[in-house]
Amino acid sequence: MTETKRNQGKDNVVFVGKKPTMAYVLAVVTQFGDGHPEVFIKARGRAISKAVDVAEIVRNRFVQNAIIGNVKTGTETIQDENKQNVNVSTIELVLKK
Amino acid sequence: MTETKRNQGKDNVVFVGKKPTMAYVLAVVTQFGDGHPEVFIKARGRAISKAVDVAEIVRNRFVQNAIIGNVKTGTETIQDENKQNVNVSTIELVLKK
Repeated sequence: MTETKRNQGKDNVVFVGKKPTMAYVLAVVTQFGDGHPEVFIKARGRAISKAVDVAEIVRNRFVQNAIIGNVKTGTETIQDENKQNVNVSTIELVLKK
Repeated sequence: MTETKRNQGKDNVVFVGKKPTMAYVLAVVTQFGDGHPEVFIKARGRAISKAVDVAEIVRNRFVQNAIIGNVKTGTETIQDENKQNVNVSTIELVLKK
């Protein structure tokens, strides 16, 4: 599935995937710089750990008045390369300043 | 650092580490079976993704009236094998039934 920073036309969502952590940190910081009061960080599967890293690095090093608001977890069913349904966990963290 | 299911004498905390996911699922289900109304699932670093998997699997397959309550994230500074300080992210999920 394609990773994109945009979600239904919303700028303030960052999907965390396979790029280096700091690429996503920069994306979040940029969106705060663009005036968004809150930025959503979303990930699934193994990228979940990286999404938490992104939120923590932004908060500790770049946007120090930012707080991590609601954290939601979920499960999505996707098809793997053999067309088998597999469940993956998802996370959504909201950073607010 | 040693993984342990006990934290300051509390039974209802499961630390997620390197074992297979289902080992931690079983630990959580067991603690609900022992009568705990809520179980804390904690992890850090790359085990964070697995902790979310554990909470989602418990909720979807084993304890269907369970809800994921507050989710907290944080940063801990630990020493690596070269005595360098490194930051790791942490997560704490509360499952309640």
